[in-house]
Amino acid sequence: MLLEFKLDKPVNLLDSEIDLLAVGEVLIDLISQEEADTFLEAQAFDRYFGGSPANIAMNLARLGKKSALISRVGFDGLGEYLLKRLGEAGVITDSISVDRNNNTTVIMVTRSRKSPKFIAYRGAEKFIDSDEIKNEDIRRSKIIHLSTFALSAPESRRAIEKIINIARDQKKIISLDPNYRPQLWEGTGDGIEYIKNILPKIDIIKPSLDDAEALFGQGDADDYIKLFHESGCKLVILTLGAEGLMISAGDEIRHYDSLATKVVDTTGAGDAFWSGFYTGISSGYDLELAVQLGNSVAAEVIKEVGAIVDLPDERALIEKYNLKGKG
Amino acid sequence: MLLEFKLDKPVNLLDSEIDLLAVGEVLIDLISQEEADTFLEAQAFDRYFGGSPANIAMNLARLGKKSALISRVGFDGLGEYLLKRLGEAGVITDSISVDRNNNTTVIMVTRSRKSPKFIAYRGAEKFIDSDEIKNEDIRRSKIIHLSTFALSAPESRRAIEKIINIARDQKKIISLDPNYRPQLWEGTGDGIEYIKNILPKIDIIKPSLDDAEALFGQGDADDYIKLFHESGCKLVILTLGAEGLMISAGDEIRHYDSLATKVVDTTGAGDAFWSGFYTGISSGYDLELAVQLGNSVAAEVIKEVGAIVDLPDERALIEKYNLKGKG
Repeated sequence: MLLEFKLDKPVNLLDSEIDLLAVGEVLIDLISQEEADTFLEAQAFDRYFGGSPANIAMNLARLGKKSALISRVGFDGLGEYLLKRLGEAGVITDSISVDRNNNTTVIMVTRSRKSPKFIAYRGAEKFIDSDEIKNEDIRRSKIIHLSTFALSAPESRRAIEKIINIARDQKKIISLDPNYRPQLWEGTGDGIEYIKNILPKIDIIKPSLDDAEALFGQGDADDYIKLFHESGCKLVILTLGAEGLMISAGDEIRHYDSLATKVVDTTGAGDAFWSGFYTGISSGYDLELAVQLGNSVAAEVIKEVGAIVDLPDERALIEKYNLKGKG
Repeated sequence: MLLEFKLDKPVNLLDSEIDLLAVGEVLIDLISQEEADTFLEAQAFDRYFGGSPANIAMNLARLGKKSALISRVGFDGLGEYLLKRLGEAGVITDSISVDRNNNTTVIMVTRSRKSPKFIAYRGAEKFIDSDEIKNEDIRRSKIIHLSTFALSAPESRRAIEKIINIARDQKKIISLDPNYRPQLWEGTGDGIEYIKNILPKIDIIKPSLDDAEALFGQGDADDYIKLFHESGCKLVILTLGAEGLMISAGDEIRHYDSLATKVVDTTGAGDAFWSGFYTGISSGYDLELAVQLGNSVAAEVIKEVGAIVDLPDERALIEKYNLKGKG
């Protein structure tokens, strides 16, 4: 199969049992109950299910698709909670390990309209074990989704490198969320160079303008799209915040407006987009409709606090947001 | 000065500006809002000031004594909060460092009447820097209080070893809370052997029955008191939970009942005891009254949630609890 993306066509997926295999962090977000710009002010915190790849796997299951997660939790009640939530949603959790030496990762977050602050207490999810990665996990999945957060820790990075190699051998679609954050990068070498070096192996990438600037320095949207294609990514979805997004398959670029009508908490907006988008391509919709489905799920999520909210099914979303394209 | 403890006599303290120098952890306790026996159940958490030596320094300042703390916090809003609280209480914070590489330590705790569970996310307080310890900090203090929690991390352990050596040269009183927990001990070697080896350098020790069993195996209260004395400790205060405590200066042992009338949250009861006890000996009371003052502060703290509560002054406590002894 020669993988080629056309915006008016569905994506040519290998027929496999699982729609999406997400790889990376599952964790507890402790989000301040009150609005607070700093941790000096924040006095109480609610526990939320979190971790970008875990949110995507969860949303996908809620949208009626089959998803699996490769990750690692601590041998503690927080890890137990995360596994319970994933299981209840129907996410396949067979490849999530329980780590007896490291706590479940916790991220403390201030709920703020300006710029949420966070403090990361990273534990088990940093230690995904490459020896535990099974060819079978990749073989039975249509799409492999990877997170940069997980790539930033040396052990999980080795596991993801192994997954990329297996996925390429098996001609699976590989997606990356390039949300590189220098303060989280661990180990020798530069995270930026590392990410640039794996881009030739990535089929679908969804940077924000900030992500693009972190990798390539200052530029405009068209520059960034060109740079990601030149780096080897086949499909580039550049998100523009309130301005919507641009999607490019190289020869054609389109812009889509945001579908958000009410903004309460933008946590998980990006994960929500991925979920709707994967649902669309997995259902055989053309890329145009899949992108808008992503936009509609993002609009649903930012209306409420937290990354995981109740979601209508894909048909209801298409009708509610009056989405165009071939479904 | 030959240091000798007599239960009917005050402790012979060197005249110094600061009543107590506490050394060890200052941290955030995230305590569940609801009663919960596991982290699977606990959904929301309140932020409390915490860390045993920090609680003691804080209580001492609230009881009108002069206290200082040697510790380390992260360069984050949680560290800022801890420094603010200490400063407001009047604790001397000059020797608390701000660490740019490690977060402020957070301990998540379930509020439970059975046995509270905890998950420790340790950061900055593990890295007290021995190079930053100044002779002057010890010289200007009457009593040096050390925590085993801090001893369990290799960097802070080196700093405490340096402090012990300086304090012994300067003939200061050295106290240790031997709350050894095997799951927190880091580095090569056995924590139990380590603690036993430093006991000859400790003047005052306050083990619980559990602490004593962790160090010496099964035994009864009289055995434990004997073992601590044989190990080199001069004054042994063995706490017996609801049964009160025993105090031994070697040649004489006395038992005192608990003064608690209402038990809401026993977090910080041990720290409260230390605070009242240090207040008593620093005020020149005999050991009998100092111990009962410790008991009375513990009784005040366990009536409320959290380790830091409003406290009456020492005179009011003596009257309220009708404490005997020479004040």
